[in-house]
Amino acid sequence: MLIEERLKELKDKINDKVPAGINVSNVEFEGPELVIYTDDPKKFADEADLIKVLARDLRKRIVVRPNVLEDPELAAKEIKSVVPDGAGITDMFFDPDTGEVLIEAEKPGVVIGKNGTTLRDITKEIGWTPKVVRTPPIESTTVKQIRQYLRSVKDERKEFLRTIGRRIHRDVTSKDKWVRVTTLGCCREVGRAAFLLSTPESKILIDCGEKPGSTEGVPYLYVPEIYPLNTLDAVVLTHAHLDHCALVPLLYRYGFEGPVYSTPATRDLAVMLQLDYLEVVSNEANQAPYTSKEVQEYLKKSIVLNYGSVTDIAPDIKLTYHNAGHILGSAIAHFHVGDGLYNIAFSGDFNYGKTRLFGPATSQFPRLETIFVESTYGGANDIQPSKKDAEEKLYEAVNTTIKRGGKVIIPAFAVGRSQEVMLTLEEGMRLDKIPKVKVYLDGMIKEATAIHTTYPEYLNPELRKQIFQDGMNPFLSDCFVQVDSPAIRENVIGGEPSIIITTSGMLSGGPVMEYLNGLAADEKNMLIFVGYQADGTMGRRIQKGWKEIPMGRRGSIVINLEIQTIDGFSGHSDRNQLMRYINHLNPRPEKVFTIHGDEKSAIDLASSIYKRFRIETHAPRNLETYRMI
Amino acid sequence: MLIEERLKELKDKINDKVPAGINVSNVEFEGPELVIYTDDPKKFADEADLIKVLARDLRKRIVVRPNVLEDPELAAKEIKSVVPDGAGITDMFFDPDTGEVLIEAEKPGVVIGKNGTTLRDITKEIGWTPKVVRTPPIESTTVKQIRQYLRSVKDERKEFLRTIGRRIHRDVTSKDKWVRVTTLGCCREVGRAAFLLSTPESKILIDCGEKPGSTEGVPYLYVPEIYPLNTLDAVVLTHAHLDHCALVPLLYRYGFEGPVYSTPATRDLAVMLQLDYLEVVSNEANQAPYTSKEVQEYLKKSIVLNYGSVTDIAPDIKLTYHNAGHILGSAIAHFHVGDGLYNIAFSGDFNYGKTRLFGPATSQFPRLETIFVESTYGGANDIQPSKKDAEEKLYEAVNTTIKRGGKVIIPAFAVGRSQEVMLTLEEGMRLDKIPKVKVYLDGMIKEATAIHTTYPEYLNPELRKQIFQDGMNPFLSDCFVQVDSPAIRENVIGGEPSIIITTSGMLSGGPVMEYLNGLAADEKNMLIFVGYQADGTMGRRIQKGWKEIPMGRRGSIVINLEIQTIDGFSGHSDRNQLMRYINHLNPRPEKVFTIHGDEKSAIDLASSIYKRFRIETHAPRNLETYRMI
Repeated sequence: MLIEERLKELKDKINDKVPAGINVSNVEFEGPELVIYTDDPKKFADEADLIKVLARDLRKRIVVRPNVLEDPELAAKEIKSVVPDGAGITDMFFDPDTGEVLIEAEKPGVVIGKNGTTLRDITKEIGWTPKVVRTPPIESTTVKQIRQYLRSVKDERKEFLRTIGRRIHRDVTSKDKWVRVTTLGCCREVGRAAFLLSTPESKILIDCGEKPGSTEGVPYLYVPEIYPLNTLDAVVLTHAHLDHCALVPLLYRYGFEGPVYSTPATRDLAVMLQLDYLEVVSNEANQAPYTSKEVQEYLKKSIVLNYGSVTDIAPDIKLTYHNAGHILGSAIAHFHVGDGLYNIAFSGDFNYGKTRLFGPATSQFPRLETIFVESTYGGANDIQPSKKDAEEKLYEAVNTTIKRGGKVIIPAFAVGRSQEVMLTLEEGMRLDKIPKVKVYLDGMIKEATAIHTTYPEYLNPELRKQIFQDGMNPFLSDCFVQVDSPAIRENVIGGEPSIIITTSGMLSGGPVMEYLNGLAADEKNMLIFVGYQADGTMGRRIQKGWKEIPMGRRGSIVINLEIQTIDGFSGHSDRNQLMRYINHLNPRPEKVFTIHGDEKSAIDLASSIYKRFRIETHAPRNLETYRMI
Repeated sequence: MLIEERLKELKDKINDKVPAGINVSNVEFEGPELVIYTDDPKKFADEADLIKVLARDLRKRIVVRPNVLEDPELAAKEIKSVVPDGAGITDMFFDPDTGEVLIEAEKPGVVIGKNGTTLRDITKEIGWTPKVVRTPPIESTTVKQIRQYLRSVKDERKEFLRTIGRRIHRDVTSKDKWVRVTTLGCCREVGRAAFLLSTPESKILIDCGEKPGSTEGVPYLYVPEIYPLNTLDAVVLTHAHLDHCALVPLLYRYGFEGPVYSTPATRDLAVMLQLDYLEVVSNEANQAPYTSKEVQEYLKKSIVLNYGSVTDIAPDIKLTYHNAGHILGSAIAHFHVGDGLYNIAFSGDFNYGKTRLFGPATSQFPRLETIFVESTYGGANDIQPSKKDAEEKLYEAVNTTIKRGGKVIIPAFAVGRSQEVMLTLEEGMRLDKIPKVKVYLDGMIKEATAIHTTYPEYLNPELRKQIFQDGMNPFLSDCFVQVDSPAIRENVIGGEPSIIITTSGMLSGGPVMEYLNGLAADEKNMLIFVGYQADGTMGRRIQKGWKEIPMGRRGSIVINLEIQTIDGFSGHSDRNQLMRYINHLNPRPEKVFTIHGDEKSAIDLASSIYKRFRIETHAPRNLETYRMI
């Protein structure tokens, strides 16, 4: 059926179900959504379950949008004139994708008004649907810039979404029924995640990352299964770490034209980390594989989905994200293929334990035949200490160092572990388990933390409650001090006993090297590893006992400071949690593939799952294709 | 390196090694060969080991060709004038690919002359290199037409070979090293054989067959690994049965432009069977997937190789054919990838037992890491009776039938089993084990037999000796009578007790239906199945006991004649032979893949090989990709 005929048919069906007096002027596919244009958005909203009923009957994600959206600048003025001054509006974000205006205010209640009266007034005035959120306690430059950029390309983006919408809703033509997964990276290794999910109709790339510590660690993107890249229907990201998303912009350089799906938080973190990646790569005198132009292209073509939202991303594939508990916005990507044909999930990196930041990964799915799970800690002996033990050990190390007048350096990834350590230290000081010294944040940690406070809905309920109901936002604690100039850094190095959390996490460059340069010679100081140190990195060498590290033209650094490694802060499930997760999966899958672990871990986990649960398992190699059905 | 530079370099190396006084005017890649053009072909030939030394040092297949080849018509006249009349020249075939002229003569000795004098005279006169063979005892129309056609397109073909030659000898550019196999058909099923062997440099398709008894049984040729088809470097055929080669011409319809490799006998049989396939398909009112034009295209782009000849078919892949013992020209395709990187063989259909026609399949290879083996009779209970027992049973059935005044109908495939049964019957009569009645051959059996006598080098030594040294060609026995008109067929049906061997082998059409129509009602007659009857075919139904078979508008046939099934004439290895073959493989491979068998057989064989020999085995599904290295 021609797409125009299909839209006509959908419009007729909608008109049948919509009460008389509500006008439906047009329907259109925009990205994964079916948009109903109307002169009466308010009346639509008043019909309690109308949109839900339409969504269920048409099996589409339905959005209702007014025919005329007032010009954002004018609309902003009108909002300000309607809302009382005391509301403290700090920003407004008009999202043309959704017809919504996000109003950030210090007192959201004032914007909403008694029984929502102010909100209704706004709607009547401007057509845009207002959503009100509390102004994030720490402003994120990244988020601000992303929103500005998306506003500037809204016309292009609308056209893009319309094209993609029509592509998603094309007819299914093939009579064959099969589902395949091709491994393009991340098998029997950690890094360069990239998996191709394909059917006779569609091709979906899941993740597209770099391999840390390797200059040639690009996924196998040149093989015919995926090349040319414009044959891909979509890229689906599980989370924002660079080994999962660093090379997404590269796809646009080589001809990809489709959308990249992720959660909103993953999109913002990914853009931040990609831009930083470009800077690091070019500092290392390597050729950056792409430029910020391609990052913009990615942003322009990104489509964000929240957890739990079932979304058509191809004629025969529906995607649903579920919490993965690993970092902010991290998701398990669940694909429903065909009309009940097959269900397959990619865990991405996930944590089945609860952390200070996040709840444990989802283990319940409506249906599930196959799951690809990570096996970073999949080896039989990869048992991590409990979170509590790790925290006690950290407190002890901090106490020892501060007492003897030293400084603590904690190298950490900007996203994930840094925030977990921050929360641990903040609580330690609040409960007097460690002295109230300054915790300096250097590198992108502050910015990453700001993005965390922009998306509080991803944090676990206790932390959310602490922030919003108890008014005790631990990230805002006085102890945290941002280092944003070489001068301040010098002061920190020469100053009072303190704690420094800084990037890079594996000592492969970044401000941590400056701190080492200034502090390594003094044995009163301590270097604490809280994350995995990959082979070949400076971090691993120091862990192994190197006593002198070369710094190029600047000579070398002598290592006298104390070295400690504290396991247990990981964002990954350890071996016990992995096995428990498989055991708790509901429904129990028919097949489990173990990926994202070194050869031994992947094989060991696969073999143990088979032995314990009698589920068919594979530890695939790169460049293989498995038939699911 | 540019290909012109490489040719220049090769020419220089050759000039260094060639003795002074021998002229090398040009060197050129033509298909897989390096052709040296010279004014002095004779002097080249006189330097005993020169070509061998060049081939070894340059690691190329070397052909020496005179600069000027006389026009074939003129040359033919001159040959006739030089050779004494008594030689009985029946045909001459000028092969511009090789610069050879094949002289077929009833008395080859007369063409050669005393100590080869006549032959040398010919060379001096015409430039072409003469090869003399005995005139095939039965003339094959197919072979004649193929040779005529190839002569008519020799200029196009030369250009094609030059293009392919340059493509084969292009530089290897990728730094990655991997070898993959993708299964496009024939996994956990019998039929539609098609396997893609790929490296970062090259893509080779092994076989491209139809699925018998299924109208939709085409390999998965639309998947991106193989599409577009002009990205394929070559197609390599194992043998001529339609489930391995029927769809090769289709590849040219959909954009393939490269060469198809096979043995010479496979090429001729394949063309014969493809043309017959087109006729059968169009008789069945189905749409033929291609026309005779595409069969010609295949022929024009075919390149033939003999057993044991190591041949470059891609920059990083060498192909060597080995005897498979299944049908005339059938081969195991052995691929040597990279410079010692990997060795993988595809058995095609093979027989590890000796038959009247062929020697057993090769089990010795210079190197071998992986082999794909058929598993038609791979199930634990797929034990076939011995050849001897099968023959005795056939003799007994014939005796019973003839004695009671009946006729024997033996439905059989034109290629393979028919000839085996013919040889059995001929010997039975010669040794007086059965009465000397006529054996009528209907359908393409005679033509297929003629092709067998054109390529005696493929037959086993005993049969060759019997034909050429003992002068007793069993195929020429008086007992065999070709049926080539409906009138003769009527006479056979109404005539004396006799034996009828006829197609199709599974009673899915063809002349066998006429014989059934005329002979099925009489219980004195007997129908003997000597081959596998696939599910859904009329043969299987009758085997199961159907007593009446519908014939469309012509009403139905009542089955009163006796039905017998005689196993043991198969061209496939049975379970015991398969296990013995794996055991005898030298070197022992690291991996065995079982294909070309129904699901149970493939899995059972894979599991038994693993249990017995501790070799890694897989029974792959269609549409999977396995990484070899």
